[in-house]
Amino acid sequence: MKKALGILGGMGPLATADLFTKIVTMTQAESDREHIRIYIDNNSQITDRTAAILHGGESPLPYMTESAKKLQEIGADCIIMPCNTAHYYLPQLQKAVNIPFISIIHQAVKVSKQRYPGQKAGILSTTGTQDARVYYDVFTAEGVDVIEPNEEERNILMDIIYNGVKAGRIPTDPAPFEKVLSQMAQRGADYFVLGCTELPVAVQSLKLENKFVDATAELAKAAIEFCGYTPRDI
Amino acid sequence: MKKALGILGGMGPLATADLFTKIVTMTQAESDREHIRIYIDNNSQITDRTAAILHGGESPLPYMTESAKKLQEIGADCIIMPCNTAHYYLPQLQKAVNIPFISIIHQAVKVSKQRYPGQKAGILSTTGTQDARVYYDVFTAEGVDVIEPNEEERNILMDIIYNGVKAGRIPTDPAPFEKVLSQMAQRGADYFVLGCTELPVAVQSLKLENKFVDATAELAKAAIEFCGYTPRDI
Repeated sequence: MKKALGILGGMGPLATADLFTKIVTMTQAESDREHIRIYIDNNSQITDRTAAILHGGESPLPYMTESAKKLQEIGADCIIMPCNTAHYYLPQLQKAVNIPFISIIHQAVKVSKQRYPGQKAGILSTTGTQDARVYYDVFTAEGVDVIEPNEEERNILMDIIYNGVKAGRIPTDPAPFEKVLSQMAQRGADYFVLGCTELPVAVQSLKLENKFVDATAELAKAAIEFCGYTPRDI
Repeated sequence: MKKALGILGGMGPLATADLFTKIVTMTQAESDREHIRIYIDNNSQITDRTAAILHGGESPLPYMTESAKKLQEIGADCIIMPCNTAHYYLPQLQKAVNIPFISIIHQAVKVSKQRYPGQKAGILSTTGTQDARVYYDVFTAEGVDVIEPNEEERNILMDIIYNGVKAGRIPTDPAPFEKVLSQMAQRGADYFVLGCTELPVAVQSLKLENKFVDATAELAKAAIEFCGYTPRDI
């Protein structure tokens, strides 16, 4: 039995489009009708997750709850969120609906363990994800050592995410991103988790090559399988 | 007052992702919250429009109606459809909801007249769009002369659309598409309307350069303006 997918999006909009595109291109399908039914709420009104976690900004939870309920109401059988930082609110959000969420963090750790067993993960994320220990707690509980960005590297990543992708200015200079990768590799990172959904958009545009775990792509793959379809690599 | 946008999608899924991406990248916005709230129903169950028009296949109208009602129900203030052939059903579909549709065909003719006044439009479309005179009637009523594909050219376009983009095999050989453009130019086409939403995906991938009116991009622009936002060129 095929299931319908809900995407609680808008966090941010381009990351939502990236996830949707990945799901479509990663689904084995020969025609329109062999694809997944997908409901998307690109809820651009959701308040900033990092600002709420770090600085007491308005909580995004009521907005996310409204979207989750709408997705359930129109027929979604499960929900995914193209925002890693948003997963901080997942335990509370899950209580608002009767359909399951598939967690991007849990997909990322599962694939990391399979692909790079015993190696150290460099977690590339927002400061909110880092301070809320969204990745740290899950990865260390699963026995995966993590290397996190220092303050200089955080600032570079936040600039790429907020002043770059979220502001509609896709980065064109690879140097700052490459500096983060090289410094974190020097501190022991064997591979890198793209743990913010704006980062795969930047990495693709900058044509960066490295040992990346694209959490968005792994979430897409898990969602395709959950809905009863067959994923293909892209 | 900002409005929310509904996308009646799935026709096809990759064309829907292309339209969504275009809306996001063409909206002037500095942060997530400056973007449009967009509801998408990627309704992959909608039956094939060309098959229904040409060969008496199952009508897509009941499926499209279900989607339009769902989009209205969860808060969309208007609806757009990333499928030119589907616009054959628009007069009937409009009766099912109280919110307006923005027509991709009318946006294409408006921009064609502005950009190429007095010139002849080569209409690149499915056979269904062509046989149902979806473009022909609107363009000629607006005084724009059209050049349509002949049988050989139709077959090439249908192969690119159905065995290429819709089947997840983005074309890599530009020669067949270029043959269509060159033959239609010889018959008098001064510019070309990408009048099937799979075609911008193919054109982008093949890096084709010509005088194109991308109907999908023009629809995106019109939707951004309707919702009270400011478009930017990409």
